[in-house]
Amino acid sequence: MVVELISVGTELLLGNIVNTNAAYLAEKCAGLGLSCYYQTVVGDNSGRLAGTIRTALERSDLVILTGGLGPTQDDLTKETAAGVWNRQLAMDPHSLERIETYFRERGLEMTENNKKQALVPEGAIVVDNDNGTAPGIIMEKEGKRMILLPGPPNELKPMFENSIAPFLTGLENPDAPGIIFSKTVKICGMGESKVESQITDLEALANPTVAPYAKTGEVHLRVTARAEDEKEAKKLVKPVVKELKSRFGSAVYTTEEDVTLEKAVVDLLLANELTVSTIESCTGGMLAARLINIPGVSEVFKTGYITYSNKAKRKIAGVKKGTLDKFGAVSPQTAKEMARGTALLTKADVTFSITGIAGPDGGTAEKPVGLIYMGCYVCGTTHVKEFHFSGNRAKIRETAVSAALTMMRQCILEYYSQKTFGKKV
Amino acid sequence: MVVELISVGTELLLGNIVNTNAAYLAEKCAGLGLSCYYQTVVGDNSGRLAGTIRTALERSDLVILTGGLGPTQDDLTKETAAGVWNRQLAMDPHSLERIETYFRERGLEMTENNKKQALVPEGAIVVDNDNGTAPGIIMEKEGKRMILLPGPPNELKPMFENSIAPFLTGLENPDAPGIIFSKTVKICGMGESKVESQITDLEALANPTVAPYAKTGEVHLRVTARAEDEKEAKKLVKPVVKELKSRFGSAVYTTEEDVTLEKAVVDLLLANELTVSTIESCTGGMLAARLINIPGVSEVFKTGYITYSNKAKRKIAGVKKGTLDKFGAVSPQTAKEMARGTALLTKADVTFSITGIAGPDGGTAEKPVGLIYMGCYVCGTTHVKEFHFSGNRAKIRETAVSAALTMMRQCILEYYSQKTFGKKV
Repeated sequence: MVVELISVGTELLLGNIVNTNAAYLAEKCAGLGLSCYYQTVVGDNSGRLAGTIRTALERSDLVILTGGLGPTQDDLTKETAAGVWNRQLAMDPHSLERIETYFRERGLEMTENNKKQALVPEGAIVVDNDNGTAPGIIMEKEGKRMILLPGPPNELKPMFENSIAPFLTGLENPDAPGIIFSKTVKICGMGESKVESQITDLEALANPTVAPYAKTGEVHLRVTARAEDEKEAKKLVKPVVKELKSRFGSAVYTTEEDVTLEKAVVDLLLANELTVSTIESCTGGMLAARLINIPGVSEVFKTGYITYSNKAKRKIAGVKKGTLDKFGAVSPQTAKEMARGTALLTKADVTFSITGIAGPDGGTAEKPVGLIYMGCYVCGTTHVKEFHFSGNRAKIRETAVSAALTMMRQCILEYYSQKTFGKKV
Repeated sequence: MVVELISVGTELLLGNIVNTNAAYLAEKCAGLGLSCYYQTVVGDNSGRLAGTIRTALERSDLVILTGGLGPTQDDLTKETAAGVWNRQLAMDPHSLERIETYFRERGLEMTENNKKQALVPEGAIVVDNDNGTAPGIIMEKEGKRMILLPGPPNELKPMFENSIAPFLTGLENPDAPGIIFSKTVKICGMGESKVESQITDLEALANPTVAPYAKTGEVHLRVTARAEDEKEAKKLVKPVVKELKSRFGSAVYTTEEDVTLEKAVVDLLLANELTVSTIESCTGGMLAARLINIPGVSEVFKTGYITYSNKAKRKIAGVKKGTLDKFGAVSPQTAKEMARGTALLTKADVTFSITGIAGPDGGTAEKPVGLIYMGCYVCGTTHVKEFHFSGNRAKIRETAVSAALTMMRQCILEYYSQKTFGKKV
């Protein structure tokens, strides 16, 4: 089945925002075994949008449109898409009630133009939006389909994963019968080129296929098989996943779709009944924030400290003045004392410290922007590691947090592998 | 003059990479006063690429293609574009010499297929590539133009800025003389539809135009004018921006392109020489992380605490056991004690507390998922506010942090507006 993506929004044509939705949907569609030959960006103009939709419907079976479902005057996607198939818009009581509830729950007043979001094309399937007010729309006509999704990524992504992906998986795929099944082998602590150099033989496979996707501090290898039924597909995928696991060993942190690196770390802590505390300088709470995004983290997370100033490092973690004077705040010695001090203070089994220079200022020839030291205390032993990251301040901090999660995981696994007893995951 | 962007690359169709080139070129072209109505992504397939180029040439004066200029077999952009205008490719000695030098200087061996990159369409203008081996190409025919640029951003951007932009500036632009200038009015603490309902008259304007963009917890109003020169354009934009500021008052936190909500808050703290400390439960450090993403925050940020457990709330912020027992961790009383306790502990002028239920578990009929209390202490006074957010755990936490920044800003502004003296921004 051939899919085509249309992103609607003048802000895209003006370059005000980057089209991350298209990349997200393209990757998801590829994972579902759909072929995509074109992506188009068009502005909030009904004439040009209608023309773009008609062209897409001529050459593709499925057209996914994103954006332009808002309450404002220049949101025209729903009206235009319905018009192309001469469908009228009708008020959907279910959606209207959801929108009213959305505003009521927030104690916000609902304005007249919000009702516009509850209008849906006749005969369309309405997809609830759990993170916003614009419902998704699925329209079908003579074997062709249009799917309309909201533009904000935090509305689009959950809607696609929870509703659209299952819908697409259930569709007949004439030119490629059977189903698509894929499993992702998630690897941390290795660069994409290094990973790729070890799977060139597997990348040559036809069914299942193996495709690498680079993420911040991670590489995901997606193994996708097409077969008569899921049982057959799984049989094809299984040995390749097994092979990848043996090639990359403990660098593989999961093969589960819904397990993130931070979830893998929290699960590792839970499984070993370990508590954790964090102390961050340049990342300013981002490490704790990622851990705390995992439900159930309350069982393991004790306390997080953000000690951006030297004073706070001394006051809270008891970093020695002499250490700061002699080696500086960005040094392996400070990272070590931060981790140990936090362990003493919070009695956590695992503590993690981050101190570095995120830039743009504060760098020197000796200690350049991007230099970061991390300390990880595990049940008495403290490991310290030096990192060099590049990019702007935000990129450096984001990369640092992924590296921190990878290091914490490695230190815990190492601790248990060196013990002759004790649990391990 | 109407420009159209075509990005060539199967990796874009598969979602392996995000199309940042399109956003970059779109913004540059808008700045040059070019109108852009379409962006297309197409794979390394000569048939589909040729069709896409023909369509673009029919509806636009200028087509900018990026990618597919590499040495490998599946790099077809140059061959295909030349084919559309029946141009032959010929070896360009100048480019060949540059490529040979490029490899020699790096001590790399030049393979046979690199020579392919020195082939250029007859009659084309060759644009030197100072950061790679693929030269840029400018082709003209009957008033239409094609510009071929290399895909790697670090080759594309310098080439566009140094060679293409000057070339385009020099071109006649009959139907739309002059340039485009825009300013963004950034509003916090109001929903998109509420903002929209107050600017319907301004949205009807033709020059400048006013367009709303919804962000998490914010609405941005972009005012864009087209005029002979920047001076003229600014004259058109200024009164509209002034009008928007007066309509939305203190909800407008900036009109600067590079100022985010967290930067506005940090600037407000700096301007009033206020220090700040944070204490977070369900947001787990996200508020501190956003503040600390601002360079220079070290002058104002004292300490951040992540007290996810009741024990930590008591131990660190001195929240009374009685308060937790009687009202619970998610209560206005606890939020207030967290903020006051942190003020006592860190001696910061401003402290901010967040405690709530981010879900998916932990919600009750009385205290549902999404219920969050925030406390803001400013120089002796503590404000507490109740919020109701919906969505998944990540969405609730992200929205909460935007609301926190908005509330912190409002509390500080209020504090100074109630004083008869003192600074204010």
